[in-house]
Amino acid sequence: MAGSGGFREECGIVGVWGHPEASNLAYLALYALQHRGQESAGVVSTDGSSLWVHKGMGLVSDVFDQQVLARLRGSGAIGHVRYSTTGATHLRNAQPFVVGHRGGGLAIAHNGNLVNAHLLREELEGRGSLFQSTMDTEVIVHLMAASSRPSTRERLVEALSQVKGSYSLVLLTERGLLAARDPHGFRPLVMGRRQEAVVIASETCALDLIEAEFLREVEPGEILEVDSRGLRGYKAFRAEKHQCVFELIYFARPDSQVFSRNVYQVRKAMGRALAREHAVDADMVVPIPDSGVPAAIGYSQESGIPFELGLVRNHYVGRTFIEPREQIRHFGVKVKLNPVRGFMEGKRVILVDDSIVRGTTSRKLVNLVRQAGASQVHVRISSPPTIGSCYYGIDTPTREELIASCRPVEEVRDFIGADSLGYLSLEGIREAVGGKAGEFCMACFTDDYPVEVPLEKPVHQLSLFQEM
Amino acid sequence: MAGSGGFREECGIVGVWGHPEASNLAYLALYALQHRGQESAGVVSTDGSSLWVHKGMGLVSDVFDQQVLARLRGSGAIGHVRYSTTGATHLRNAQPFVVGHRGGGLAIAHNGNLVNAHLLREELEGRGSLFQSTMDTEVIVHLMAASSRPSTRERLVEALSQVKGSYSLVLLTERGLLAARDPHGFRPLVMGRRQEAVVIASETCALDLIEAEFLREVEPGEILEVDSRGLRGYKAFRAEKHQCVFELIYFARPDSQVFSRNVYQVRKAMGRALAREHAVDADMVVPIPDSGVPAAIGYSQESGIPFELGLVRNHYVGRTFIEPREQIRHFGVKVKLNPVRGFMEGKRVILVDDSIVRGTTSRKLVNLVRQAGASQVHVRISSPPTIGSCYYGIDTPTREELIASCRPVEEVRDFIGADSLGYLSLEGIREAVGGKAGEFCMACFTDDYPVEVPLEKPVHQLSLFQEM
Amino acid sequence: MAGSGGFREECGIVGVWGHPEASNLAYLALYALQHRGQESAGVVSTDGSSLWVHKGMGLVSDVFDQQVLARLRGSGAIGHVRYSTTGATHLRNAQPFVVGHRGGGLAIAHNGNLVNAHLLREELEGRGSLFQSTMDTEVIVHLMAASSRPSTRERLVEALSQVKGSYSLVLLTERGLLAARDPHGFRPLVMGRRQEAVVIASETCALDLIEAEFLREVEPGEILEVDSRGLRGYKAFRAEKHQCVFELIYFARPDSQVFSRNVYQVRKAMGRALAREHAVDADMVVPIPDSGVPAAIGYSQESGIPFELGLVRNHYVGRTFIEPREQIRHFGVKVKLNPVRGFMEGKRVILVDDSIVRGTTSRKLVNLVRQAGASQVHVRISSPPTIGSCYYGIDTPTREELIASCRPVEEVRDFIGADSLGYLSLEGIREAVGGKAGEFCMACFTDDYPVEVPLEKPVHQLSLFQEM
Amino acid sequence: MAGSGGFREECGIVGVWGHPEASNLAYLALYALQHRGQESAGVVSTDGSSLWVHKGMGLVSDVFDQQVLARLRGSGAIGHVRYSTTGATHLRNAQPFVVGHRGGGLAIAHNGNLVNAHLLREELEGRGSLFQSTMDTEVIVHLMAASSRPSTRERLVEALSQVKGSYSLVLLTERGLLAARDPHGFRPLVMGRRQEAVVIASETCALDLIEAEFLREVEPGEILEVDSRGLRGYKAFRAEKHQCVFELIYFARPDSQVFSRNVYQVRKAMGRALAREHAVDADMVVPIPDSGVPAAIGYSQESGIPFELGLVRNHYVGRTFIEPREQIRHFGVKVKLNPVRGFMEGKRVILVDDSIVRGTTSRKLVNLVRQAGASQVHVRISSPPTIGSCYYGIDTPTREELIASCRPVEEVRDFIGADSLGYLSLEGIREAVGGKAGEFCMACFTDDYPVEVPLEKPVHQLSLFQEM
Repeated sequence: MAGSGGFREECGIVGVWGHPEASNLAYLALYALQHRGQESAGVVSTDGSSLWVHKGMGLVSDVFDQQVLARLRGSGAIGHVRYSTTGATHLRNAQPFVVGHRGGGLAIAHNGNLVNAHLLREELEGRGSLFQSTMDTEVIVHLMAASSRPSTRERLVEALSQVKGSYSLVLLTERGLLAARDPHGFRPLVMGRRQEAVVIASETCALDLIEAEFLREVEPGEILEVDSRGLRGYKAFRAEKHQCVFELIYFARPDSQVFSRNVYQVRKAMGRALAREHAVDADMVVPIPDSGVPAAIGYSQESGIPFELGLVRNHYVGRTFIEPREQIRHFGVKVKLNPVRGFMEGKRVILVDDSIVRGTTSRKLVNLVRQAGASQVHVRISSPPTIGSCYYGIDTPTREELIASCRPVEEVRDFIGADSLGYLSLEGIREAVGGKAGEFCMACFTDDYPVEVPLEKPVHQLSLFQEM
Repeated sequence: MAGSGGFREECGIVGVWGHPEASNLAYLALYALQHRGQESAGVVSTDGSSLWVHKGMGLVSDVFDQQVLARLRGSGAIGHVRYSTTGATHLRNAQPFVVGHRGGGLAIAHNGNLVNAHLLREELEGRGSLFQSTMDTEVIVHLMAASSRPSTRERLVEALSQVKGSYSLVLLTERGLLAARDPHGFRPLVMGRRQEAVVIASETCALDLIEAEFLREVEPGEILEVDSRGLRGYKAFRAEKHQCVFELIYFARPDSQVFSRNVYQVRKAMGRALAREHAVDADMVVPIPDSGVPAAIGYSQESGIPFELGLVRNHYVGRTFIEPREQIRHFGVKVKLNPVRGFMEGKRVILVDDSIVRGTTSRKLVNLVRQAGASQVHVRISSPPTIGSCYYGIDTPTREELIASCRPVEEVRDFIGADSLGYLSLEGIREAVGGKAGEFCMACFTDDYPVEVPLEKPVHQLSLFQEM
Repeated sequence: MAGSGGFREECGIVGVWGHPEASNLAYLALYALQHRGQESAGVVSTDGSSLWVHKGMGLVSDVFDQQVLARLRGSGAIGHVRYSTTGATHLRNAQPFVVGHRGGGLAIAHNGNLVNAHLLREELEGRGSLFQSTMDTEVIVHLMAASSRPSTRERLVEALSQVKGSYSLVLLTERGLLAARDPHGFRPLVMGRRQEAVVIASETCALDLIEAEFLREVEPGEILEVDSRGLRGYKAFRAEKHQCVFELIYFARPDSQVFSRNVYQVRKAMGRALAREHAVDADMVVPIPDSGVPAAIGYSQESGIPFELGLVRNHYVGRTFIEPREQIRHFGVKVKLNPVRGFMEGKRVILVDDSIVRGTTSRKLVNLVRQAGASQVHVRISSPPTIGSCYYGIDTPTREELIASCRPVEEVRDFIGADSLGYLSLEGIREAVGGKAGEFCMACFTDDYPVEVPLEKPVHQLSLFQEM
Repeated sequence: MAGSGGFREECGIVGVWGHPEASNLAYLALYALQHRGQESAGVVSTDGSSLWVHKGMGLVSDVFDQQVLARLRGSGAIGHVRYSTTGATHLRNAQPFVVGHRGGGLAIAHNGNLVNAHLLREELEGRGSLFQSTMDTEVIVHLMAASSRPSTRERLVEALSQVKGSYSLVLLTERGLLAARDPHGFRPLVMGRRQEAVVIASETCALDLIEAEFLREVEPGEILEVDSRGLRGYKAFRAEKHQCVFELIYFARPDSQVFSRNVYQVRKAMGRALAREHAVDADMVVPIPDSGVPAAIGYSQESGIPFELGLVRNHYVGRTFIEPREQIRHFGVKVKLNPVRGFMEGKRVILVDDSIVRGTTSRKLVNLVRQAGASQVHVRISSPPTIGSCYYGIDTPTREELIASCRPVEEVRDFIGADSLGYLSLEGIREAVGGKAGEFCMACFTDDYPVEVPLEKPVHQLSLFQEM
């Protein structure tokens, strides 16, 4: 169950150019991308002469209201939602990141992670650069500032040629909007149109909400530019596709098109493949809501075993749930999910989830289902065992915390208390995902990292100042 | 789709007696009952000498924190979540309602609606009673105060013998906890145990979360009393069951036991009956999430047509969504639900929902599914046409606003733009619900009201003071 | 220094009738009366058919804004500011107090203290009355409700005939405004006009701000009524004047007319009398700002010794000052007042204050002035030694805490570390105040209480419920 | 009346080094300096390895609480209070300003105004510098970053050698504290000790509150450095004193020592000189509180005309006062000041104020006093006519708005409606202030600016981004 203390997406981004209510569209798009980050939200707009900025901690609906949106003037805008990886989260690190640069303003919103940011930062500080945040994103802007190239786009290209890692980004000045995706295409980025307006977003569900037509993906290595002269695409870097397979397994919304695939159907295909690889005689297929639902439907359809919503989710559980005091705490997963009692009495249940991270949540869920009377609990996971951390924009536990990193499947099964446990194979996932072999980054399953990660991470640098 | 500007539950209640962390348990139970009211929340506890009160506007998680819970001392507590029917919602009308009464404190939390409250209030005011709120609940306390009976329980019985309508309530003094359910049993009320502690709650999902064992329903017409002398039940009024069938159709959580029935299974049975009554040749069964899911599963299982999650819900849509300005507004249901594009291309889709209220939401959903490419859209509703308002504790539109109140099914079908439309019949719902005929209130389908509603409603009385 | 942890006024009130922006005027008047209570503020208005209520914790400027005022509709309004005597302050006890009563609304705002409230409450609860607050004010409303008299005014008279203690109050219904002052006239209450509108307020400074003309005091024992039939006064109770002399010494604003006297000039006269009674050779007269300023000016003018602002007040000290941690705390009075250094070097300083309560603040001030270099510090107090608590609407320490209650002046002088200490005599204050002997309550100086206080105060009654 | 819509100080600063509760001391010092800026407050502390930052909008008491102070760890700290000159005030421009710089953190708090900031910024941006705020202060940090000098102090000197205008500043790194004052010494800066700890502050009143001993002023052109090696002073720039005379007239607290002078006594001396220059036969001298009080005392003592507190200030008027709607607005100065009625009836009143800015406030005050019955109103101003704007750290209206900039005294007198009007002469103020001729900046009186202001102010640069 990737979302429960496991894997977390770090960001969602949007860019709008050429619409009289650009900031409104950006706001709505962020609403649709809220699943990609719930900690801070921000929009920067431009009316051609100034940049207008609003950022805040919390959900999109907490950060924005009518008044704020009315003040975010102009026909260009970018936006960002963020989940931060550390406890020390604060407004200083909220995006879009805004600076004054060569007589104008420049705002940037970034989804991804630059693995050599600390090295570049050390170098830049040595040359006298001043950093205002601890975000890797800031490095890009400093590299742009150091460039002697004449245009913003060329400075962006020069900056990006020095960074390593993952980035899908949008960049706004008073004069135009730029979008860029790293050569590996780790994170998704799509382009659409709403009448004359160009819209860039992390996922197509954002386009759907604002009734923009999906045109195509921003290609790996491509840079898009849109301004008064129209929209241009540039092949800035040679593509070498390593798209994050976990976007398809868990992160992206099932109603999105991601990496030219329909997420819901890919997940169903994973469930079908799982049913073929790990068949078992049982009375019902029960998903872990909500991420396990499409795979469970696929499993049910392939196996013919009825699909049942045996675990019900409490939709009012937010990040603010207060655990009560000692004696009655440890409600954990129960606050979120409750089994339908009686109904599973004496039944053989297949529980379908997208992944197992630490194993503790899965153990509680298996236990819940047993307490609800199930005679057997068979766990089926619609991805291979997760054995490695991600360095390309996903917040993951360390390798040591990943239960499958050093234990055989049988031990995991015993730990979570299931009668049987089946993971989808690498072949199974490749088949479900389709396309050419090697187009996807599966480093967290294979330990084969497409971009090398510099060894030492001088963490002290990143905690220069702590804002409260 | 009962929840979209349609029917709304007005309250959830809980009572705990005999647990050292009573207020914590009450808080958790309210968390599980949050779907019954999202506007205000309150807990009153007692340590035997004082009542400790905390109420606030907003979700349970907004209103309470560790500090507040720590100050709600003692081993007895009651709690309440509320959805208010009018725009003028304010803290004054938040419950539990607390008064000083014969040298002690008295707190009451009420789910239901007293149809003769205004008449009783007029009479009480004429005799010199002072009202501090506009809640019908306050009438009960005044009638108790006017009673000359020696015990709190007897005063409560005397008060309840004068009111008409629906009530499931809990009442707390420094010395004990009382629970009462009206003779018709309109609203649910269950009893459980957690070790020595007695727990009363609107639904069993609240017992599940705090790991209390479900014992039985509080019977229609019954009064429970628990204090230092233990737990006693009294048959105070002769039962005449008219349990609200909409609790089973829509309001209660699917993982609850309500009216001695498993809600999930009843809803699936409704879906199965619906499939038998309104079969149609189609490619997929798609629920309106989340309330339509169990009926859709039932429909799919009975018909053999595959169940698909073709509409995806945005879980971050809260009550605070800000509609943007004129030009791009009217996103309405799109903010909440988005179809899985491509996947329904050229397909015949059966949309399953629990009810149609005004018809406007259904129309938008049918349109969304058509835009996503469906060649046919067949709407199936797991309850009969709603033709009457509720006076027993549910917030409903007026009769004039109910689309089915004065139009034949064909006109409704045309209004929502479906290829076909089928409602579950009265016989179908009775069969799905089971039990004796007449045990359920179906007034909103049949116009046959089990408790007469006094004609004139002197509204001015209820707007005596408006708090801001 | 009455205000520093010493004596505190409990309330200020206002009533407006016959002005299209009644709530705005009430709000402004409360602004002018803010010194009489800083803990909560409230306004209730009426448009003839409803009462509109807004109350909140904090200063008037925190509680109200344009939007709230716009919603407080109608041409009649009453308002209240409150300082509460206990730590457990909460919105429930904020005034105006509002109830539904005989088919209408009724709001009341009260300045004063009813010494037999607990006895009346016990009796009323015994007869079945329900109390919603712990305020003595609520008793008045219950007594009115119990009355069988036909008009609101007559019911008010009947209620007030049963209470003992102090009250200046305003009462609002949809149909009119009432004002009443107890027969002793303990607390001030004045009447003015702004064009057609009638304005009632605690002090004339409130009339000044809203440009209402001061007409006269509401007389002790008088009841005023204003409605569509105009303004009438009723001598409801025989007056027996015992006006609170501390209003003139400390509480009222110096720019107010109170008890038909100009407060600033009375205070100056006290200072002059003090100079005559306790002359001393010195270099400068320094007031404790702000309350000691008028008496110090009087002292300076009478003695010919120069007046100097030797202690400077920090105007930004609010109630929210956070004392830092252990090592550097105890800044106490230094946060509020700082001496002008150097300037007092080697000088003989006369410090003038209005009163000494516990003595601890005076001790710190004397010490501050010595540290600033003063060679002698002579303390002069513009009132007699305070030896008794107040039961008529002032929050005072207990008798035991009053330093002068059991110690001769020499001991007080030694405690505060002054070279000499002089209090104004009873004769001196009578002369400064003027008027007939016995017209003023001086119980806190003489221990001669004009209204008997029932012995036992059943405190438990008043802590029935604790709101957080 | 400088403070009423007229002149406003822009900042107060503090630095503490060598105290275990450095942030607590900084917080208290800011409390004492609150009059120098009420819009935002911030403290940055260091424990030798990190900088800890907290900033917020509002008063010191709003921005800080115990928890925040506890987290601002370490024995070094700097703090800042700010009043911003523009409507668009936001947290981004709150100080201290913090950046990452050559592998460490650097925080700076600045009082003053750099007149060539926009030119330097343009140049720096042209070389690729990125600006995160619109504050001139940021330029200093960029110039430091561009310097190749080895130590922070030397880089600061190099940066300051390029800026023109006024600065009193403190600068904190993990390793030490620096303080600097511009060669003109426009703004005050003092140094004190509390045991081993070194304290730097804008005024001595801050030292008083934290019981630090005043040692001396930081000299114009001097740089102080304190770290583990102790305290050193450097004459970095040749002093050319032009101290702001308005600090003595109005800004500084009367209990402060500023520019080696006792502010209270200087103001009294101004009042005495004013009495000599503009004698008039009258009954009382009334100050405009609070800033006019010392001069009024001086005037009274010199002239022998009694000092009276004829205008009373409402101490609860904050920045949040809400003007009510159309009909009854324009209360303006009445909300703040109210005359003592009756008392001035038929009297000849001398009103003493520190300055006249636009004249509108003075006009209202004269009118108020007349309405209170004064037969004559003579206005006396304890400074010369203000004819020029300030470019050295004071927020002033434009020259066009200054009533005295283009009108003779008689016209100003007529405008404000006084019987007579007298300003203190330049000679009078020089004499009252004392010291050498030319040691003070009197540009706002003489139009003789000691530091040239570059002509065009490219305002657009400073509004690059607007945060909401």
